[in-house]
Amino acid sequence: MKLYQLCGEDRDAAFSPYGWRAKLCLWHKGLAFEDEPIRFLEKAKISHVSPQTIPVLDDGSASVVDSFAIARYLEEKYPDPSLFGGTAASAQAPVLNQWVDQTLVIGIVQLVLTDIHKCLDAENKVYFRETREKRFGRTLEEVMEGREEKLVRFRKSLAPLRQILEKSPFLSGDRPQWFDYAVFGTFMWPHIISNFQLLTEDDLVYAWRERMFDLFDGAPRHAKRAF
Amino acid sequence: MKLYQLCGEDRDAAFSPYGWRAKLCLWHKGLAFEDEPIRFLEKAKISHVSPQTIPVLDDGSASVVDSFAIARYLEEKYPDPSLFGGTAASAQAPVLNQWVDQTLVIGIVQLVLTDIHKCLDAENKVYFRETREKRFGRTLEEVMEGREEKLVRFRKSLAPLRQILEKSPFLSGDRPQWFDYAVFGTFMWPHIISNFQLLTEDDLVYAWRERMFDLFDGAPRHAKRAF
Repeated sequence: MKLYQLCGEDRDAAFSPYGWRAKLCLWHKGLAFEDEPIRFLEKAKISHVSPQTIPVLDDGSASVVDSFAIARYLEEKYPDPSLFGGTAASAQAPVLNQWVDQTLVIGIVQLVLTDIHKCLDAENKVYFRETREKRFGRTLEEVMEGREEKLVRFRKSLAPLRQILEKSPFLSGDRPQWFDYAVFGTFMWPHIISNFQLLTEDDLVYAWRERMFDLFDGAPRHAKRAF
Repeated sequence: MKLYQLCGEDRDAAFSPYGWRAKLCLWHKGLAFEDEPIRFLEKAKISHVSPQTIPVLDDGSASVVDSFAIARYLEEKYPDPSLFGGTAASAQAPVLNQWVDQTLVIGIVQLVLTDIHKCLDAENKVYFRETREKRFGRTLEEVMEGREEKLVRFRKSLAPLRQILEKSPFLSGDRPQWFDYAVFGTFMWPHIISNFQLLTEDDLVYAWRERMFDLFDGAPRHAKRAF
């Protein structure tokens, strides 16, 4: 198996939240895979899929695009150990996935946008600035304005995660499963590219993130950072 | 058991999304209960709880406030049949509950606000207008402006539900469980107080809502409407 995921200048510091989600799902299933980090401007390397978005998982003759589709694919093809944990949780995963994208990805991107830019090589920096400034309708630096107020709002938006963690050590109960990886994979993104402190140490989400860092022999904790 | 839930002028047409969620959970558990519909200005009837919000479930000496807390309480005290369906789904319910409140309640209220007002008696009409206009910072009629564009956005926001319904007949899999009631209870609210068509008939969510109307011997379908 081969996992294509997004990296910056340093190929050993892949940072995309979606790439991390896929990687954590592969680790959960105990599957061996080869890492294929690619930069924004290296999409030719995934010309075999459509749409050309990363991550992509190649598994023999199958190519799966999109981190959520990869999770579904892995669960169907390699059922043990279960990734979604039961019929209801599996059914409801699309709503949780959207919640993570809307709340965490959008919440975090406004806090670390210039840090992402910093960890790219010169050519990708130009591409990133152009495409993101067009998307946001503002400069990268303007998106980052009011960071402290945005941080307060971001921390508040994690309230439902705290509600879960008041009752169980992981977001899926006693053991980490897909939703833990969807959320933690998203936290790995700012962790890899930025030193900005998103969580306070007295936060239940902080303590959970520490537990997640220790999984898979501490591989997430020891992942190379891009700065 | 007694369930206090919000009604308008017609006490037989209780309409609150949260009251409906609680009622559906009670039906799911097969528990007998007495309905106690109360109007906004009749909070004295729930002076035994704090905060004084409805729904409230009185069960012997226990009083439970908040529809989600009621669901949790019922699941713990009356485990069969299961309401949440498994460890992961039960753990993750707070995120789903917040998604329903943010996406559906906020999406729908802007489409039916004046219809709610219409089904209240004179005294409660004054209270509702005052409190809601203060909350929204606009008149009820101003909140309703651009209803058609808002309707388009609302329908789009249901995309993750359609993703679930492409794979299973209910939002919890083969059988309805808590998340079905959280979403459907929220749809019962505009159904009871308004004739406005929220969903198109070719929508998977529409077909699912039809199946939900038929549950419990069609009790939701035959519920009295307020207009």
